[in-house]
Amino acid sequence: LGETVNAVHITNSSSSSATVHWLGTKPEVNLGATFGLPWPRGKFFPEYTAFSASDSRGQNLDLQSWATGYWPDGSLKWTGHAIPASHAVSEAYTIKATSRPSSSSRSRNSSSGIIVSETPQQVKVNTGQISVSFPKSGDIVIGGIETAAGKTVGKNGRLVLQSQDAVFDSPDVRGETPVSYFNFQSRISNVTVSDLTSVRTLVTVRGTHSPADGSASHSDWLPFVLRFYLYANSSAIKLVHSLVFDGNATTDFVTGIGVRLDIPLEGEEQYNRHVRIAGVNGGLLNEAVQGITGLRRDPGSAVRTAQVEGKELPDISTWDTRVSSRTQWIPTWADYGLSQLSPDGFTLRKRTKAGQSWLNIPGGTRAEGLAYLGGATVGGLAVGLRDFWKRYPTGLDISNASSNTGTITLWLYSPLAQPLDLRPYHNGLGEDGYADQLDALEITYEDYEPGFDTPYGIARTSEISFYAFDKTPSRETLSLLTGYLNNPPVLVTSPEHIKESGALGTYWDLPDNSSEAARTIESHLDLLAKFYQGQVEQRRWYGFLDYGDFMHTYDADRHTWRYDVGGYAWDNSELSPDLFFWLYFLRTGREDVYRFAEAMTRHTGEVDVYHIGDWKGLGTRHGVQHWSDSAKQARISQPQYRKYFYYLSGGDERVGELLEELLDTDKTYGVLDPNRKVRTDGWTPTPGSTVAMGLGTDWSALAAGWLIDWERRTPRWHESRTKLTNTMSGIANLTNGFVTGSGLYNLSSWTLGPPPADPTNRGTVSVSHLSAVFGLVEVVSELIDWFGDSDLPPGFKDAWLDYCYYFNAGKAEQKARYGVDFGNLNLYQGHSRLTAYVGRARRNETLQRRAWSEFYGTDGLKPSAPWNVTRVSGKGQVLLGEVDEASWFATNDVAQYGLAAVEDLAFVGGLLGSL
Amino acid sequence: LGETVNAVHITNSSSSSATVHWLGTKPEVNLGATFGLPWPRGKFFPEYTAFSASDSRGQNLDLQSWATGYWPDGSLKWTGHAIPASHAVSEAYTIKATSRPSSSSRSRNSSSGIIVSETPQQVKVNTGQISVSFPKSGDIVIGGIETAAGKTVGKNGRLVLQSQDAVFDSPDVRGETPVSYFNFQSRISNVTVSDLTSVRTLVTVRGTHSPADGSASHSDWLPFVLRFYLYANSSAIKLVHSLVFDGNATTDFVTGIGVRLDIPLEGEEQYNRHVRIAGVNGGLLNEAVQGITGLRRDPGSAVRTAQVEGKELPDISTWDTRVSSRTQWIPTWADYGLSQLSPDGFTLRKRTKAGQSWLNIPGGTRAEGLAYLGGATVGGLAVGLRDFWKRYPTGLDISNASSNTGTITLWLYSPLAQPLDLRPYHNGLGEDGYADQLDALEITYEDYEPGFDTPYGIARTSEISFYAFDKTPSRETLSLLTGYLNNPPVLVTSPEHIKESGALGTYWDLPDNSSEAARTIESHLDLLAKFYQGQVEQRRWYGFLDYGDFMHTYDADRHTWRYDVGGYAWDNSELSPDLFFWLYFLRTGREDVYRFAEAMTRHTGEVDVYHIGDWKGLGTRHGVQHWSDSAKQARISQPQYRKYFYYLSGGDERVGELLEELLDTDKTYGVLDPNRKVRTDGWTPTPGSTVAMGLGTDWSALAAGWLIDWERRTPRWHESRTKLTNTMSGIANLTNGFVTGSGLYNLSSWTLGPPPADPTNRGTVSVSHLSAVFGLVEVVSELIDWFGDSDLPPGFKDAWLDYCYYFNAGKAEQKARYGVDFGNLNLYQGHSRLTAYVGRARRNETLQRRAWSEFYGTDGLKPSAPWNVTRVSGKGQVLLGEVDEASWFATNDVAQYGLAAVEDLAFVGGLLGSL
Ligand SMILES: [Ca+2]
Ligand SMILES: [Ca+2]
Repeated sequence: LGETVNAVHITNSSSSSATVHWLGTKPEVNLGATFGLPWPRGKFFPEYTAFSASDSRGQNLDLQSWATGYWPDGSLKWTGHAIPASHAVSEAYTIKATSRPSSSSRSRNSSSGIIVSETPQQVKVNTGQISVSFPKSGDIVIGGIETAAGKTVGKNGRLVLQSQDAVFDSPDVRGETPVSYFNFQSRISNVTVSDLTSVRTLVTVRGTHSPADGSASHSDWLPFVLRFYLYANSSAIKLVHSLVFDGNATTDFVTGIGVRLDIPLEGEEQYNRHVRIAGVNGGLLNEAVQGITGLRRDPGSAVRTAQVEGKELPDISTWDTRVSSRTQWIPTWADYGLSQLSPDGFTLRKRTKAGQSWLNIPGGTRAEGLAYLGGATVGGLAVGLRDFWKRYPTGLDISNASSNTGTITLWLYSPLAQPLDLRPYHNGLGEDGYADQLDALEITYEDYEPGFDTPYGIARTSEISFYAFDKTPSRETLSLLTGYLNNPPVLVTSPEHIKESGALGTYWDLPDNSSEAARTIESHLDLLAKFYQGQVEQRRWYGFLDYGDFMHTYDADRHTWRYDVGGYAWDNSELSPDLFFWLYFLRTGREDVYRFAEAMTRHTGEVDVYHIGDWKGLGTRHGVQHWSDSAKQARISQPQYRKYFYYLSGGDERVGELLEELLDTDKTYGVLDPNRKVRTDGWTPTPGSTVAMGLGTDWSALAAGWLIDWERRTPRWHESRTKLTNTMSGIANLTNGFVTGSGLYNLSSWTLGPPPADPTNRGTVSVSHLSAVFGLVEVVSELIDWFGDSDLPPGFKDAWLDYCYYFNAGKAEQKARYGVDFGNLNLYQGHSRLTAYVGRARRNETLQRRAWSEFYGTDGLKPSAPWNVTRVSGKGQVLLGEVDEASWFATNDVAQYGLAAVEDLAFVGGLLGSL
Repeated sequence: LGETVNAVHITNSSSSSATVHWLGTKPEVNLGATFGLPWPRGKFFPEYTAFSASDSRGQNLDLQSWATGYWPDGSLKWTGHAIPASHAVSEAYTIKATSRPSSSSRSRNSSSGIIVSETPQQVKVNTGQISVSFPKSGDIVIGGIETAAGKTVGKNGRLVLQSQDAVFDSPDVRGETPVSYFNFQSRISNVTVSDLTSVRTLVTVRGTHSPADGSASHSDWLPFVLRFYLYANSSAIKLVHSLVFDGNATTDFVTGIGVRLDIPLEGEEQYNRHVRIAGVNGGLLNEAVQGITGLRRDPGSAVRTAQVEGKELPDISTWDTRVSSRTQWIPTWADYGLSQLSPDGFTLRKRTKAGQSWLNIPGGTRAEGLAYLGGATVGGLAVGLRDFWKRYPTGLDISNASSNTGTITLWLYSPLAQPLDLRPYHNGLGEDGYADQLDALEITYEDYEPGFDTPYGIARTSEISFYAFDKTPSRETLSLLTGYLNNPPVLVTSPEHIKESGALGTYWDLPDNSSEAARTIESHLDLLAKFYQGQVEQRRWYGFLDYGDFMHTYDADRHTWRYDVGGYAWDNSELSPDLFFWLYFLRTGREDVYRFAEAMTRHTGEVDVYHIGDWKGLGTRHGVQHWSDSAKQARISQPQYRKYFYYLSGGDERVGELLEELLDTDKTYGVLDPNRKVRTDGWTPTPGSTVAMGLGTDWSALAAGWLIDWERRTPRWHESRTKLTNTMSGIANLTNGFVTGSGLYNLSSWTLGPPPADPTNRGTVSVSHLSAVFGLVEVVSELIDWFGDSDLPPGFKDAWLDYCYYFNAGKAEQKARYGVDFGNLNLYQGHSRLTAYVGRARRNETLQRRAWSEFYGTDGLKPSAPWNVTRVSGKGQVLLGEVDEASWFATNDVAQYGLAAVEDLAFVGGLLGSL
């Protein structure tokens, strides 16, 4: 995507630099890293800029650089950078941007980097440490992994998928009705390799899961995208694995989702073959396929020590003959399996061979998700899944370890768990038509509609790593890699640098400790951030699909979140907690906040959103299942929620793809009216026609997507620019601007006009408390900065400032301005940031003070709130004996309090000391 | 069993009393308790003795008393006692034995006790709190549970069993070959009620599991014995549930073992129905089938509070109509399920109804195994399994809670787990004949033989409780009962009282702190006891079959016990750790030791022993599976290991049954020669004939069983007395007594003669280090006490004292006495107690000092041993990150060190200060 920027080693002329440091503590090893950097408007133009990198000691290192975002003038707004793997790890790295003549040479590969060779059959990537082949067709997604020493330590990497067409209602009736079982494997449709490959090469493999027996017993399904990242000088492969569910929830029950590789073991003695499986806190199961420790006779301490350390044993002729003469009586263990079927416990087992009983290996609590199979002389491969236990039910299988070819299967969804059941959780409860559905909404807060509770089109992305070894690695190495897997080191620049660049908006600032009032707000933000982190653990918000989300509202009576109450369960980004947590990271740079927000982004952008089908681009409102509510809206898929991670990560390609998917969200208004249940004007949608659209939650999501697309300069960016500019002009041209509430958007001309109820644009008033709380403030703020006063569509800024001024102005002023007041609204605290925005824009201190008055004295989380967390315990009170609760808020409150606090501090924080 | 002893309230004439206290802390409630009490020889005769009970304040209470063991003179050696349930719990209870004229009246039921009515169709037991019917035929084992208020809160209690005839080698091949699934339910063959019923009634139900559809698709199998215990004034039922596996391990895979009851709910509003499921640390899931908390509209705080507290809600007419008009939109949750598939984590789920998706309820670590279903007005039932998480994979299901009849299913083996796979863990490894098997024994220490690795005939016993309620109980009550379930209060008398009675032998004494040396030994014993308790947790020695056992030998190289190495894995009572841990409890009275020993007894007596078939009465030698080794021997089923728990528990009827099963162990010598692989004299067994038998491990086990039987006065006790006396005489008549090593036992005349190699009894020498370390010392010590010098078969004591003297006497003395020495032996430290025994018997201080010299200075655990526990951690070292290890001993060492320490202290401890 976008144009590319050259890496150079030596620079001259005018320069500017940025520093990145490791989030949290410095990792012990660097397997290569990618990161993003923001740059000020107008400073560096891609044609005239080169980037170079140096470590803390001033040593230069290879750098691959590319643009991920641009300012409107074409200058670099965001760049992505990759550094190669290195044994020595620097505390920080400095990236220097150097202006250089446009005529300077541009080379695709640097001297010491990755070598990529491509044929019609395959792509081959040689990092210097490993050479990996990626076939372009068939069912093998990794052809082979060869070490620099020429050992093939993994091959035939493929996806495996298992499903069945029915589930039994209870174990009592198993077998009573026939069930068809299906096995699938990857079928490749497309393989591409990144333009830039010198330091980091990305191979993207797309395809579907196809019946493994080649039959037509089941259609191909579960389309996948596999992104393999390889870094220069690294023997690791990182795979970002994405799936879309395109099955029928009532007839397609996934029972296993896996990645499988063969491990060549031919020629390796059984006692030189090693199995390693990650346990808890860096722990490992350390076994040989044929153990020679713990026997009745001692082969010799050198023999035992070698095996425990994973080294080749001394020649068998040197062993105590009481052992060497009897190796035939020592069992070999061909198969191992670890199952993490709950987030709290895993089991582990092995067997000598199929047909014999499994032997229980004592398990433990939370397995860290890595397995190694290999030999002391032939080498081997470790495979791992990030957040393994958090994404339960997961598994790791090692099979045929005593044969010439072993296999490792990583299960993203364990076949030993109950099938993945995506059916609706209730049968409609007799809700017959909109009237019933709206009535039910009054009590369970669920917005139900038959057929809308479908998972068709949701997705999930997982992060997998492969580590290749010439020989069995030390326990320490595998333990270290297991930590690396679960906490992949992240390079980030400072909050100051991001702030100064303006590249992620001007609506946030660094922590403010300049006044007692500001310090109190900072402590409150900290309390909220930590509370949600703690709740993830205490409430076990884990699971293959669930991890990354949190819940909407608490039930103080039951001391539990309302996981089972219609509209109060999974939050699905309601009122923009994504924005709050990301802004909180931007201003603090805290690792805990980053990890929390990252998991959230991986969830909300994938599971809560439809990626295919008629509703592609829409998300689902909060509910008991991530897809159960019938409100399918752009406000939930809001691209702005993905923006921060996207740029900070150096342009995570999966998130980039999600952003592109959202470019067609506007078309959904032609097939689905978000307001269908409450519309009174008789309007109905028609595909490709003129469609009704809200100027708040709807337009803000579309506008964010268009702006990001324009920034990214994707192939559709001219279209995005037109849509964005046109609709901004359209809003500006509405008599009442944003206060109009909605408009008619033309899906062909991409223009926006008055709403159906006011075709002549006489001016109507329709203000919702929700309009500005799904990103509108942040998106408009960025738009006003982006265009600048001179290029902004005329009237747009005033329309926005009016909206900002009047929302919280009170009915009298509203009526004086618009003829009618806005009615009874809420979320006043959250809207204080609109007042703060207009107060700052107009340099009006009275208005600025009004913002703080609204922040402290309207609704939301007031200073008089408890501002603490309560420990609930006592006999039988809660399932886990004791938990923390804060029943004085819902997540809605937190999201909007947090955003108001962050933005009020940024806009009008200077007044806090003088209130 | 045995004769019964009356309970009386008021006593006079000569009396003696014993006090029992609660093990550990006093429970908050007493649901009725049974306990055993020892009495000195010759003091109380059943015909002339009455027992009464009083609490700590001197208040009398009802007492049911019976004899569980007698002295040879017919005086009471052990009594069992039961006290009724009571709200007030006394710190201790005093049991007074009163001599009374033999003509005094004997009544079967006391005034205020249980009422039992029996018809040809059923037994009905009314405790005053509940009335429970037990049908005598059919498939329902609990007909109904009715409260005193006349509410039926449980009915149709039955066993459920699920199995299949094949398992898939891997998920890849599921469905490829047909599998037959079978559902079974209990079929009653026999129901009996205890003779005594006034304070405690025992209803015993026997039967098998029969195809639930009444078909002949599978034979009836898995015979069961259910022992229902009911106490006066209690609304609880305790069930001791025992199963024997009589299937074919390769074609009968158990997939679910359960107990299921129906809960009548007709007429109860959905919002007045309650589900409670025990979580962690007394925690509970507290839900209503139709929740009215956490809704968008508040029905009123009184309504919410009532529901959370499990009380009947105020009339719906009093609710906020915004809720009451919309209850049809609030889902009801019919089904709940908890699965504990690992000892570390459970999952929990519910669904509105079959056919809809399950909803995940956040689970946790270790569920405490209780579920309640009922209503605020109709009442309900709680069902629980002791050690629920320790006996994983377990489960609790609640079904149809929104229907007129709900059900609770307690799964002793969860149908959501992988099938119970009892097949051999290896295929024989090509071991072809005894020569190969003996050669393999040299390296893996496994004594393998094809066909011997069978679980056919093993058993498992579980403890289940039912609690009946007129209305939904408080959370506090259920939390308390969950604790009660898992740590059932135990009444015990003091170590002093047991010691003084002599009823559990004279080979142990109270802790000795009289010298530095003694204190050191005491601290070592404490270290060992605590270490094994800790290892159970750290090594996760849990599981349906495994819990209660520990492992045999450690692998210091791998920092793991040798769970996978032939003869070194499960300990199966090798060298009598059972004796050590029970003696350690007897002398310390410690609760932790009792719980550990109790779990061990429930395991070793059930899982490690064959209860049916040709090998009935034999146990299996230590190994990878509890049944995998081909050494099937009486030493493992040694009744002495069960004796302590049996008498202390007041005659636990399941253990009593196990003891009776062992009475035919002698017959197995007619079908299976324990020495078949090493026998050189050509002898082969013939059923019912004269059989070869070792005088150590074999005879000690048989003798223990005969003695216990004689003590218990079972219907076969005359036979046992004869066998015991005859064989003791036989040993005494052997020229070399115990040193002879073996003899020929006549299965018809029950006499013992010289071994095959010495038909004329010229005197042979065959001494094994193993002979005296499976209970021989303890059994012979008891026998010598039992008979007394005057009644002891002539020569028996001398034969024993000779064995005791010469084992550790050295080759010169052995040769001088027997013409040959005993060869190279080991376990000298353990045998120091034999020296101590003979030293004490002969009042020979030199010999006594020799015992200490052997204890400290031969083999075993020496004073110079580390005597500490090491923490193993470090990257990747062990699966769980860190564990404790003590690689300087094996369990063999611990068992024999412990027994030597305990017995040497008892026999010759007085010398310790002067060594
Ligand atoms: Ca979600
Ligand atoms: Ca065992």
